[in-house]
Amino acid sequence: MIVTCVHVNVLPERMADFREAIAENYRGTVTEPGNIRFDVLQQYDDPCRFMIYEVFESEEAVLMHKETPHYLKWRDTVQNWMAEPRRGIRYDVVEPSDRSLW
Amino acid sequence: MIVTCVHVNVLPERMADFREAIAENYRGTVTEPGNIRFDVLQQYDDPCRFMIYEVFESEEAVLMHKETPHYLKWRDTVQNWMAEPRRGIRYDVVEPSDRSLW
Repeated sequence: MIVTCVHVNVLPERMADFREAIAENYRGTVTEPGNIRFDVLQQYDDPCRFMIYEVFESEEAVLMHKETPHYLKWRDTVQNWMAEPRRGIRYDVVEPSDRSLW
Repeated sequence: MIVTCVHVNVLPERMADFREAIAENYRGTVTEPGNIRFDVLQQYDDPCRFMIYEVFESEEAVLMHKETPHYLKWRDTVQNWMAEPRRGIRYDVVEPSDRSLW
């Protein structure tokens, strides 16, 4: 299982547009067979900062996601709405160690 | 719903002990009625860094968690195992906006 936290710092004037674009990407992503979670979060004390909590079944599922129309549309749409390049941090799972609990 | 990402930088010589202690805290936390998720993750390119993805039903559930024996034991146990103070970042949920999808 592959967990990636994607951190995005959005320009203040694009915050509402970004929420709309990421919601569309969310709706597409959760229909992918290899997707486990795709939680979209907005930082409480700094609402221009978003975190996407992405969990995929495998490396192949991550690669497949990056070829979907909803991902590619999102990537191109938000490209100029960010205050700095987005940053993904990858993690290994410690818990839940049982796959069925995900 | 309250989402908090807790970032912990563990001393290299305490990494295995930390994994054990957080696994015990995990097992207790997921039995709490107000807990929704408590994912424990280890950073892929820097395994001394852990991230705990905590989701609770409400502010009350967060406060209740901080009074449980498993939380208090974990907090005291790991206190001197960290390279720097742990840091919690709080988020609002954008997606899934439907509570039943959590």
